[in-house]
Amino acid sequence: MMPVTSLSGFPELLPSERFVELEVLDRLRRTFELHGFAPLETRAIEPLEQLLRKGEIDKEVYVLRRLHADSDSDDAELGMHFDLTVPFARYVLDNAGHLEFPFRRYQIQKVWRGERPQAGRYREFVQADIDVVAKDTLPFHHDVEVARVMAEALASLEFLPALRLQVNNRRLIEGFYRGIGAPDVPAVMRTIDKIDKVPAEVIGRLLVDDAGLTPGQSAQCVALANIRATDTSFVEQVRALGVEHELLDRGLDELAAVLTGCAAIEGVTVEADLRIARGLDYYTGTVFETRMAGWESLGSVCSGGRYDALASDGRSTYPGVGISLGVTRLLMPLLQQGVLRGSRPVPSAVLVALAAEETRGESDAIAQALRRRGIAAEVAASPQKFGKQIRAAERRGIPFVWFPASADGSHQVKDIRSGEQVDADPATWTPPADDLRPTVLGPG
Amino acid sequence: MMPVTSLSGFPELLPSERFVELEVLDRLRRTFELHGFAPLETRAIEPLEQLLRKGEIDKEVYVLRRLHADSDSDDAELGMHFDLTVPFARYVLDNAGHLEFPFRRYQIQKVWRGERPQAGRYREFVQADIDVVAKDTLPFHHDVEVARVMAEALASLEFLPALRLQVNNRRLIEGFYRGIGAPDVPAVMRTIDKIDKVPAEVIGRLLVDDAGLTPGQSAQCVALANIRATDTSFVEQVRALGVEHELLDRGLDELAAVLTGCAAIEGVTVEADLRIARGLDYYTGTVFETRMAGWESLGSVCSGGRYDALASDGRSTYPGVGISLGVTRLLMPLLQQGVLRGSRPVPSAVLVALAAEETRGESDAIAQALRRRGIAAEVAASPQKFGKQIRAAERRGIPFVWFPASADGSHQVKDIRSGEQVDADPATWTPPADDLRPTVLGPG
Repeated sequence: MMPVTSLSGFPELLPSERFVELEVLDRLRRTFELHGFAPLETRAIEPLEQLLRKGEIDKEVYVLRRLHADSDSDDAELGMHFDLTVPFARYVLDNAGHLEFPFRRYQIQKVWRGERPQAGRYREFVQADIDVVAKDTLPFHHDVEVARVMAEALASLEFLPALRLQVNNRRLIEGFYRGIGAPDVPAVMRTIDKIDKVPAEVIGRLLVDDAGLTPGQSAQCVALANIRATDTSFVEQVRALGVEHELLDRGLDELAAVLTGCAAIEGVTVEADLRIARGLDYYTGTVFETRMAGWESLGSVCSGGRYDALASDGRSTYPGVGISLGVTRLLMPLLQQGVLRGSRPVPSAVLVALAAEETRGESDAIAQALRRRGIAAEVAASPQKFGKQIRAAERRGIPFVWFPASADGSHQVKDIRSGEQVDADPATWTPPADDLRPTVLGPG
Repeated sequence: MMPVTSLSGFPELLPSERFVELEVLDRLRRTFELHGFAPLETRAIEPLEQLLRKGEIDKEVYVLRRLHADSDSDDAELGMHFDLTVPFARYVLDNAGHLEFPFRRYQIQKVWRGERPQAGRYREFVQADIDVVAKDTLPFHHDVEVARVMAEALASLEFLPALRLQVNNRRLIEGFYRGIGAPDVPAVMRTIDKIDKVPAEVIGRLLVDDAGLTPGQSAQCVALANIRATDTSFVEQVRALGVEHELLDRGLDELAAVLTGCAAIEGVTVEADLRIARGLDYYTGTVFETRMAGWESLGSVCSGGRYDALASDGRSTYPGVGISLGVTRLLMPLLQQGVLRGSRPVPSAVLVALAAEETRGESDAIAQALRRRGIAAEVAASPQKFGKQIRAAERRGIPFVWFPASADGSHQVKDIRSGEQVDADPATWTPPADDLRPTVLGPG
């Protein structure tokens, strides 16, 4: 379904597919707003120096120039944002005087990365982020809040394959590594981060060779990484490894609180997974990743965590906790494989037939009466034979055709799937709820 | 309200302002979909050659490069789209095999132009376009449809200053100029296009000097340009000028049909205005512009028309008719001047108070009960004295504070504006409709 002259990495959708994306975005927005997250949109463009403040992703930035810029132009160098966190941090600093903290925001926007084209890599894609940011201190319960809000948002997308929100805590693993006396904690984290790609025995050896652990310490780290639980039973399992450290205690308490806080949410699995480390990121406590059942090769589709300094302006520090859903990354494969599709490519529930060009006004009035009651309708483009108009509705995926009253009869409406045709009044007739708007059809 | 380190031409909104924009976009979308227009989004990036197919705007294009692109890179040169028409035309050609014609789509997206910074010029802004496109032939009634849909959409924004959708027809004016024997029709159009900026007597002289008209012909052109009417009475006024031409007849018929088709729409003025020409654009029949009362200096905020060849691929031609609303151009001045504002900066209708950190679970459960019934709620960040929690709600603009039941009492909810506090049940209490979501406050 990709367009003929597609640009690699710049996906586009057909209208029926776009309905699926819109339904996802609408449901996310609804959940986020119900929890008090304010809508925010930042400009797509940032000064390049702003984008490059963290060095590692600079290769992926698209830099802008005006086609006919003067060579002596004093324009600041500009680039397109590659995530929504960097612009949000900048926005918080810019607008701190106008915001009330803790500030909850959601942000659903496209971002761009100048990636080399390869399967599954997008150069333009939509992310949906939520963050809570505070001034100076941010109570821990906001970690629980963010986990719960995103879990609820994911659960609202019941047409997706099963999602598993995996939670861990950096303090927990760092405390554990310190508790066993690891000489180089970051090296242990880097090695454990490979555990999904490398056999366990290789990890065990690398922990000895690269991270300087004894074989016994190495075995304990692997044992920790293998712990996962959908309730707080992981605490007992960690305790059974016999390691003591103050940071470990705090991490266990925090992670248990997240699991407890999400216990009531149905439709998505929230799991403590003690191998999650978000290796390269700047998280300091809670960390999140999300896998979709059967689509593990996509990696994490929804990730985030707690950062002690989302932003800082010298006077104040703004700690935050957030999580980012890769909407395009999640949806495009499902749409491309036909796992998800929209029920039709047009919003119209009804095609109002046209008896003759001279009676277009009557057909328009019927359509308008339906629209006033929230029923999307269009009028046939031309007064072909009714059989042709029905086939046109069929091709457009419109479920109902309305026949205006003739001199000796009443209005009639036909369900073109069943063929059933009944008398109807444009002031009162309503289609079944499932036909009112395009819906998302899953694999079933 | 602009951010401290704002980039000129890249406007950003505070959350309460963003609610205004979202309300506008939601209402537009609702009207467009009720009329059967399908949602479409195209990539923000196009090959530069695609963007430069029409020469005149090339100066304004932002060109992209990857920050660390290899010098021997074979990447196509890419630029950011500067409108939604060029990408839509490209999309139609790319996907013609997957689309049913006539194809109605709406497209609400940001576009970018590398303008030199100046007041009222945006480098990043949102447009909302509707178009109907057909293969080979597009019946005229779609011109009426597009006018009506956009007029209805504008009428749904009742909080805006009065809007006037001005319609004209290129055939009408071209037929008139030919009918009077103008030797250089485009020169007449170019001159009449200046009529809002230049005194009438100067226009009259320019028509003689630059467009080669006689003083009598010149006077007739000025008389035509001064005709405007909110009904079909303009036809009589044009006829009274005594000019005959086949194109004029057709243009008069078409323009009268648009006026008749829009006659029933309340809340927006639809007017035949015979000076509208959309000088530089490639329209061939109906043309649209829109002015906002008291904000005429913004120019037209919503423009479009009929083009005989929106796109063409050698085998087929795709005629179209469309109209584009400059959402940012319209809203930013109103927000900056305080004419419009959101009623609050958070979605939350209720702040659930917190008696103690230990009872956060109870407050969470109350908030969750409200959310289940569509009432946005947040829980207080910390268990301060209730007076402080009420003041926190006040600062956030949240209208209601909920006090969880104490051992010897029932739940209570306080309207912090009136101070009224009543017993309430989280399973049944509902705020007044106006408080449920942030609303748009107009000048009144």
